[in-house]
Amino acid sequence: MTIYNFAAGPATLPDQVIKQIQTELPSLRGTGMSIMEISHRSALFDDIINTAQQDLRDLMDIPEDYAVLFFQGGGTGQFAAVPMNLATKHHRIALLDSGHWAAKAGEEAANLGYQVDTLASTKGTHYDRLPARTSTLPVDTYDYLHICTNNTIEGTAYHDLPQTNGTPLVADMSSNIMAQHYNVTDFGLIFAGVQKNLGPAGVTVVIVKKALIQNVDHIPSVFNYQLFAKKNSMPNTPPVFNIYATGLTLKWLKKIGGIEAMEAQNKKKASLLYDFLDQSKLFNNPVKHEDRSLTNVPFMTNDPQTNQAAIADLTAHGLLNLKGHRSVGGLRASLYNAMPFEGVEALVNELYHFEKNL
Amino acid sequence: MTIYNFAAGPATLPDQVIKQIQTELPSLRGTGMSIMEISHRSALFDDIINTAQQDLRDLMDIPEDYAVLFFQGGGTGQFAAVPMNLATKHHRIALLDSGHWAAKAGEEAANLGYQVDTLASTKGTHYDRLPARTSTLPVDTYDYLHICTNNTIEGTAYHDLPQTNGTPLVADMSSNIMAQHYNVTDFGLIFAGVQKNLGPAGVTVVIVKKALIQNVDHIPSVFNYQLFAKKNSMPNTPPVFNIYATGLTLKWLKKIGGIEAMEAQNKKKASLLYDFLDQSKLFNNPVKHEDRSLTNVPFMTNDPQTNQAAIADLTAHGLLNLKGHRSVGGLRASLYNAMPFEGVEALVNELYHFEKNL
Repeated sequence: MTIYNFAAGPATLPDQVIKQIQTELPSLRGTGMSIMEISHRSALFDDIINTAQQDLRDLMDIPEDYAVLFFQGGGTGQFAAVPMNLATKHHRIALLDSGHWAAKAGEEAANLGYQVDTLASTKGTHYDRLPARTSTLPVDTYDYLHICTNNTIEGTAYHDLPQTNGTPLVADMSSNIMAQHYNVTDFGLIFAGVQKNLGPAGVTVVIVKKALIQNVDHIPSVFNYQLFAKKNSMPNTPPVFNIYATGLTLKWLKKIGGIEAMEAQNKKKASLLYDFLDQSKLFNNPVKHEDRSLTNVPFMTNDPQTNQAAIADLTAHGLLNLKGHRSVGGLRASLYNAMPFEGVEALVNELYHFEKNL
Repeated sequence: MTIYNFAAGPATLPDQVIKQIQTELPSLRGTGMSIMEISHRSALFDDIINTAQQDLRDLMDIPEDYAVLFFQGGGTGQFAAVPMNLATKHHRIALLDSGHWAAKAGEEAANLGYQVDTLASTKGTHYDRLPARTSTLPVDTYDYLHICTNNTIEGTAYHDLPQTNGTPLVADMSSNIMAQHYNVTDFGLIFAGVQKNLGPAGVTVVIVKKALIQNVDHIPSVFNYQLFAKKNSMPNTPPVFNIYATGLTLKWLKKIGGIEAMEAQNKKKASLLYDFLDQSKLFNNPVKHEDRSLTNVPFMTNDPQTNQAAIADLTAHGLLNLKGHRSVGGLRASLYNAMPFEGVEALVNELYHFEKNL
């Protein structure tokens, strides 16, 4: 039975990447050592980390005036690191509250002593759409505006970016980085945990405009952008294996045609599922159509027991990890880059049969 | 040619662990998913992280009144996390400066605004021995005393612990955790990056007396001990692969007899090398005998060119990564747990031949 893994993250990785890791495990590039055993101060690892950086630059068309950094600590680590590094003038941040993870970013910054102004929120409608601002952002008031480009739990995504009136835009892109195209130059900073579209959990990519990097003392070294920029992300031992595996996934993405090809594929995958849900008498997706995510699709019936029966039926057919997040309930299919079109076909076929046989 | 990797970290791992990772890569325990693709919210990963915790407890005889936590960010992350969590009363830390990494821990705490008193230092003699305090530690003055149990660069280690007169003892045990026996109850807190004795870089073990865990607000969540203790080290996505691989190494260590057997083996390995160095007319180890490390052995000739020639000769014989740290020069052999006795025999044999043929 073919297994398709619809987990929200850590998530499915390309088969070719898993195979390459397996092949290279006992001895990487003829060294007699595995990737887990090589020094981060070696020429070999320099090549690995520099190649991963360059591939990120190539894929996302990142200009030279942005730094590409690798951290540990995930998105939650960056919820602290971003204000510590960037909110140095006003100590005040604007937030668009589009879901659980946007709100969490605001809570972390507030807990660290920064003023966080939630400009708009769709919490009242269970985050079934993106928040819309009604007024222009005042100039020279906020250090940045924080958004979450894709809301993993609620299934919404920004396909157009909010206007910021000159305020730097900071994006948590953890669940749709490289799944769809964004212009890097529209952002002051992008961060993303790799464990959804780019690799195994344990490394976080930060793409930041160099002009925003401050000399901030008195913050933890492992969150210091200036230090990481100066030391090529290695003031201390980096997560060597995780950066290596991320690098392999970037190579895979380049090979299949980059973000443009990936986005076309992701639209095809998402449309297949949304089209099914929209004609279904049993299942529905609650999200406003123009705000729907390409990568995370929550859906449900009107009955919790039927939801459970559907999950059990899908699991029995090798369609795994489709339980919705507890705050939304129902089901959720995560269709990240490594999920093949055939996986979504198999899912839709089985949902169709489940509905028909009910 | 058999390869032996004497790198200071990331470092050699047991062959059996590498093989098991390779075997389990495409499908872990029949799931059809690799370890990199499973959710940290799954029963499977709960079993993996809980087993790793229990094996740590079993191996180090960690009592119930200590928490065992897994963080990201390495030892450098803990240089910040420890004072943020523990230095809540006096905001004042005592330090024994035994080398580069002890000093770095002090610098990080000082940079974050804590008062750091260096009680003794052997910087003046190039850290060729451990610092000795001449006076008793005053009571109720310091939140803790920081030591580095094994100095990776300089090749010294605490075989007996300093008296603290009731002040909690905090140990950076990154380079000799489970390489020799310590009583956990002698410490308030132990931390260790896994990348020397326990696994692939990207996870840091913290063993902390529960009574020392404070309700500290206003610090980054990813460094909050109370939060990590409450959420079983998973308030956010943990480094799943790295914890899994660490767990396999712990199982390996249990199987070969635990820390007691390991320490006996490590003493045998270290003695073989130190005995050779002490009788050599060409090479010498500069460290005071009773402070010598079991895991890191710096050595050198009187001539930089001869050092380089020795490194080249060893490399040609498959004895890798023996270049000393730039601050010490010469050569350094790291003899962590996964380095077999045969590796040290091969090293000593080749050093003997090099000296003889010079």
